[in-house]
Amino acid sequence: MSPSPFDHAYLSGLFGQPEASRHLSPKADVAAMLAFEAALAEAEGEAGLIPAEAAEAISAVLRSFSVDMDDLKQGTSKDGVVIPALVRQIRAAVGPDHGAHVHYGATSQDVIDTALILRLKNILDLFEEGLNTALQRIEALNAAYGTLEIMGRTRMQRALPIPLSHRLGNWKAPLLDLLTALEDLRPRLLKVQFGGAVGTLAKLGEKGPEVRKRLAAKLGLEDAECWHTDRRPLSLLAAWMSEVTTALGKIGQDLALMAQNEVGEVTLKSAGGSSAMPHKQNPVRAELLVSIARYNSVQISGMSQAALAENERSGSGWSLEWMILPGMVQATAAGLDRANELLSDIKSIQAS
Amino acid sequence: MSPSPFDHAYLSGLFGQPEASRHLSPKADVAAMLAFEAALAEAEGEAGLIPAEAAEAISAVLRSFSVDMDDLKQGTSKDGVVIPALVRQIRAAVGPDHGAHVHYGATSQDVIDTALILRLKNILDLFEEGLNTALQRIEALNAAYGTLEIMGRTRMQRALPIPLSHRLGNWKAPLLDLLTALEDLRPRLLKVQFGGAVGTLAKLGEKGPEVRKRLAAKLGLEDAECWHTDRRPLSLLAAWMSEVTTALGKIGQDLALMAQNEVGEVTLKSAGGSSAMPHKQNPVRAELLVSIARYNSVQISGMSQAALAENERSGSGWSLEWMILPGMVQATAAGLDRANELLSDIKSIQAS
Amino acid sequence: MSPSPFDHAYLSGLFGQPEASRHLSPKADVAAMLAFEAALAEAEGEAGLIPAEAAEAISAVLRSFSVDMDDLKQGTSKDGVVIPALVRQIRAAVGPDHGAHVHYGATSQDVIDTALILRLKNILDLFEEGLNTALQRIEALNAAYGTLEIMGRTRMQRALPIPLSHRLGNWKAPLLDLLTALEDLRPRLLKVQFGGAVGTLAKLGEKGPEVRKRLAAKLGLEDAECWHTDRRPLSLLAAWMSEVTTALGKIGQDLALMAQNEVGEVTLKSAGGSSAMPHKQNPVRAELLVSIARYNSVQISGMSQAALAENERSGSGWSLEWMILPGMVQATAAGLDRANELLSDIKSIQAS
Amino acid sequence: MSPSPFDHAYLSGLFGQPEASRHLSPKADVAAMLAFEAALAEAEGEAGLIPAEAAEAISAVLRSFSVDMDDLKQGTSKDGVVIPALVRQIRAAVGPDHGAHVHYGATSQDVIDTALILRLKNILDLFEEGLNTALQRIEALNAAYGTLEIMGRTRMQRALPIPLSHRLGNWKAPLLDLLTALEDLRPRLLKVQFGGAVGTLAKLGEKGPEVRKRLAAKLGLEDAECWHTDRRPLSLLAAWMSEVTTALGKIGQDLALMAQNEVGEVTLKSAGGSSAMPHKQNPVRAELLVSIARYNSVQISGMSQAALAENERSGSGWSLEWMILPGMVQATAAGLDRANELLSDIKSIQAS
Repeated sequence: MSPSPFDHAYLSGLFGQPEASRHLSPKADVAAMLAFEAALAEAEGEAGLIPAEAAEAISAVLRSFSVDMDDLKQGTSKDGVVIPALVRQIRAAVGPDHGAHVHYGATSQDVIDTALILRLKNILDLFEEGLNTALQRIEALNAAYGTLEIMGRTRMQRALPIPLSHRLGNWKAPLLDLLTALEDLRPRLLKVQFGGAVGTLAKLGEKGPEVRKRLAAKLGLEDAECWHTDRRPLSLLAAWMSEVTTALGKIGQDLALMAQNEVGEVTLKSAGGSSAMPHKQNPVRAELLVSIARYNSVQISGMSQAALAENERSGSGWSLEWMILPGMVQATAAGLDRANELLSDIKSIQAS
Repeated sequence: MSPSPFDHAYLSGLFGQPEASRHLSPKADVAAMLAFEAALAEAEGEAGLIPAEAAEAISAVLRSFSVDMDDLKQGTSKDGVVIPALVRQIRAAVGPDHGAHVHYGATSQDVIDTALILRLKNILDLFEEGLNTALQRIEALNAAYGTLEIMGRTRMQRALPIPLSHRLGNWKAPLLDLLTALEDLRPRLLKVQFGGAVGTLAKLGEKGPEVRKRLAAKLGLEDAECWHTDRRPLSLLAAWMSEVTTALGKIGQDLALMAQNEVGEVTLKSAGGSSAMPHKQNPVRAELLVSIARYNSVQISGMSQAALAENERSGSGWSLEWMILPGMVQATAAGLDRANELLSDIKSIQAS
Repeated sequence: MSPSPFDHAYLSGLFGQPEASRHLSPKADVAAMLAFEAALAEAEGEAGLIPAEAAEAISAVLRSFSVDMDDLKQGTSKDGVVIPALVRQIRAAVGPDHGAHVHYGATSQDVIDTALILRLKNILDLFEEGLNTALQRIEALNAAYGTLEIMGRTRMQRALPIPLSHRLGNWKAPLLDLLTALEDLRPRLLKVQFGGAVGTLAKLGEKGPEVRKRLAAKLGLEDAECWHTDRRPLSLLAAWMSEVTTALGKIGQDLALMAQNEVGEVTLKSAGGSSAMPHKQNPVRAELLVSIARYNSVQISGMSQAALAENERSGSGWSLEWMILPGMVQATAAGLDRANELLSDIKSIQAS
Repeated sequence: MSPSPFDHAYLSGLFGQPEASRHLSPKADVAAMLAFEAALAEAEGEAGLIPAEAAEAISAVLRSFSVDMDDLKQGTSKDGVVIPALVRQIRAAVGPDHGAHVHYGATSQDVIDTALILRLKNILDLFEEGLNTALQRIEALNAAYGTLEIMGRTRMQRALPIPLSHRLGNWKAPLLDLLTALEDLRPRLLKVQFGGAVGTLAKLGEKGPEVRKRLAAKLGLEDAECWHTDRRPLSLLAAWMSEVTTALGKIGQDLALMAQNEVGEVTLKSAGGSSAMPHKQNPVRAELLVSIARYNSVQISGMSQAALAENERSGSGWSLEWMILPGMVQATAAGLDRANELLSDIKSIQAS
């Protein structure tokens, strides 16, 4: 039972999003790493860098390979990365004839980064779905209440009346923009990582670019120059996720203010109960969206600190990414689900 | 299998510290919450606020109570806090005669905050032990190599020779200070939280202070005014933990620089291997201490954002604490263990 | 004499960039606000919302208007924004006949945000120039030393040889990307802000969109929906600036490591002196680029916290932007200048 | 005219606090640095490390010394620190007979850090005064309205009635605690920095500790081991300041919520006006306290990142402190002033 709020036995009722957790799980990570090693062997086989039979043997073994997680943990503890132990396990399974051709010319970072990207590909789809749902639910509110005149408020004071559609428009606009930005993000993020020991693919000689191109195609990723030390793809993702949760946080903050008893502009169907005050109707999801927004606003700073990479690979920067990125992804996924639940949970909106 | 690096199937080989994870687990949290409810019933029984037999019945039930975690998750999802569901479960087990006396005059925050503090009490002991070990290991290095003259370096350049004892002293001084600061922190942090619905203990009438005092004594905590909206105890802990990991990060940063091949002032026994370069000896733990230091330096910002509480209870601030504090605790515990492993792993130190 | 490091009597020798400071100065801000008010009057005159002669009168007054800064300060202190006092001053100068037509249908945020954007337009040009210079200087290094074989380093250890051109390529790639991203950023950032009191341009009736379009055209900005509560334009800028300084920070970090005495891969022409050790050659600018990178990595968190805007205008979020954005801009401008000085300051590069 | 909000021609009406700016000004910094050099010469003269007449000569020159700021700026630009240029100026003024005895055995960091601490000493007094005023003003509100029953609110919803004194108590408690903590902070922060080139005071031989003790006494600071690489004094200050502004931010947040038109629990005497809506009464200072709280919550992360110092002196960490600490001090001072103005500005409090 993990203390992480995202996978916690009961706090996951607030912070959890099972699909995101599944994509980020060690199991999914291993599966993606094995997919990388298989595709690499195939690409190198096709390029004539390793024997075709070695490529076939490796690929066959990896189709039904079962890792020894305890060994991976011990290896990670010693090496700082999981790959040396994983490659050792794969080589042992492939056997002495072809084992040396496993992971040929690649380095740990190639496998780990690409495996992350493969899972982020699925996660971006999840985000897209969540955003589309949110937009539909705001649109539904607009259809039902858009012409209602509510009080526009600035600096926490009543200003002038606005149609509710104006505020709903303010909720929608950044989400629509972020859907467009997601299309820009995909090719910038969903790139293969393949550079070998120091990023030059030196061990592959002239065939480096060809193998990388084949590898990317097999994995459904963009072919790209090695980005070992240029973490912009992940910084762009982090910034985008924080913008999403900020946009959702605004919805939450607005609804929490509208649901204040004295304001009474929003009634929720199923607000949270209190252990001390049975009469309370707490706008739990609305507040949670604010928490999640502020959480990601904090974490982008960490992703940015992590992005300052020295030389050809930064161990400390890279490890810091591993500490921070999964939580941001889970928070964003949870934020989208909670926002969509909240938007469906609006019983009525009325002028105050 | 959690994606959290602290409890991850293999990344926990780097970021994990099992005792911290255990103290922060949902199971330990529930146990502490049950301890709170039992102690509360006993204190209220002794103060004559609830019948003595009710107190006994509640206490007896809680001694062997087994929670329904799925129900807690559903309740948390609805209420934003676990306590309404937990109290409902306890009341059902206690039965109709005494059930209404469960959780009397308390609110969710009383239980959740106090249960956190009870677990932090154990965690502070763990931290103290880790600090003492680190100090001993630095002292052992000092005994072995303290008189060795190494090059003092400022602004990344050779400056003037220093005895190694001087640098070791720079490692030790903040850790010693932080041990002293831990003594100051304990009474400021290890305080009961008990204020009832809005912090006034109104439901307990004149007996509020007496019950709180008894409750604190039973739980081995300081008696204190309700701190629902004054999160300084947790801010102090967060700052202290970040100072610990910064002090450890300095050790890591120094050792990574000393272990550079061209500098060669430190040789490690068991540095990490590479999947691409068998000759590499990576100072994995040294780098990790830098990652952990920067992680906590980021997270304190989140704890501080969370501490800004509106009115008598901030749902959004409180939830943000839950998202951030466990990771800081786990990172700090892991940092201490990794630092101690690293200090033991020094094979030799020599002048460059 | 300001304590700000960016405008400090002597620290500006490190952190200052005079052009950025000039664009951000109160004087430039006022000039841009006056330009907004003049363009607004003209646009409203053309659209027939205010009399043509009023537009002319206002425009004429503003061409040679001199503000009373002390009065602006007092007004800002009272109103939380400078505009009520500024409009009062302008109206007094325009006189009773046309004064009421000044600032017609606009709100403080329209003027302040647009005036910021007008100055950021110049600042983006400054950034572009700095990036181009950096790319040229890296290219010049490449021409001189690109084929030199240096040691590639991963995780702070010697890995395998690389041509220097590979590392220089790692410096160049993110800067090139950021130049491209700057083109994407321009239309997303350089947008007029015009929404009136609550963002609906209600006071302009049907002519709102026309006036906004004319206003944008006169100011050389994009026409755009009111973004009072959607601070993504500024978040995008903040993220971009942080990515720039991270890319420059990598150059600084690499050069500081290469300039270590034992490594000796880089010799600088004019490294910094020490008051205690005349022999020291401190890689001052290299270290500074690391400081600036970490500075912006911290500040993006603040811009993101500021972006969570409640209702139709957030006073607290907006004020937080004013506290954070100018420093980020100045740090980025200084970072570019310092990086370019540093790149010119390389005397020689040699293998270690 | 600085773009810094703290010293800005008109934004300083919101963010400025003249006394803090004065203590942090370059002029005050130079004065403190000269005081250090004078006290050092005197201490070294008394200890017999430099001739008594040299000490007298240096001290005499420094009593009326006028620096060349442009030269300091050029020197800082080159050396990364101001001290080499400053010492050169002083030596030139002292003349060839005694010039070499200026700054004897000291390093730049000794002067710059100690000069900072000397100014922080005054600033802590300023903070103490601000806190005492705030406590008095809350007490005055309590005397006037403490027994008023208002609605206690949790999670943004009406909960149960409380006496206003309870909420005022929640405002007071952290401020009182922070006054006590200020007493703990003083000896931990107000420490001389004196370690020489690499922190060992090697150049002073056996007399190092004596000179440091005399130096501390002359400057009214604590004698302390060199803390070149242990930045905990400044981290403690940063944490304390952020706790102060969080406590003030709560007051602001509460008052902004109480001043909502529909809630109407607080009426301010002189709320801010709007350029678009003459009827608006904006709780400007209340919102500003929230901005300032979040600002410092961001900046503590930067101070913590800066505190990770490698080897015997970190140029990049130290420079980062210079970028961040002055703003935190100015924001805290402004926060106290704005809070005190706001507390005086309460016209009436009434139940809603």
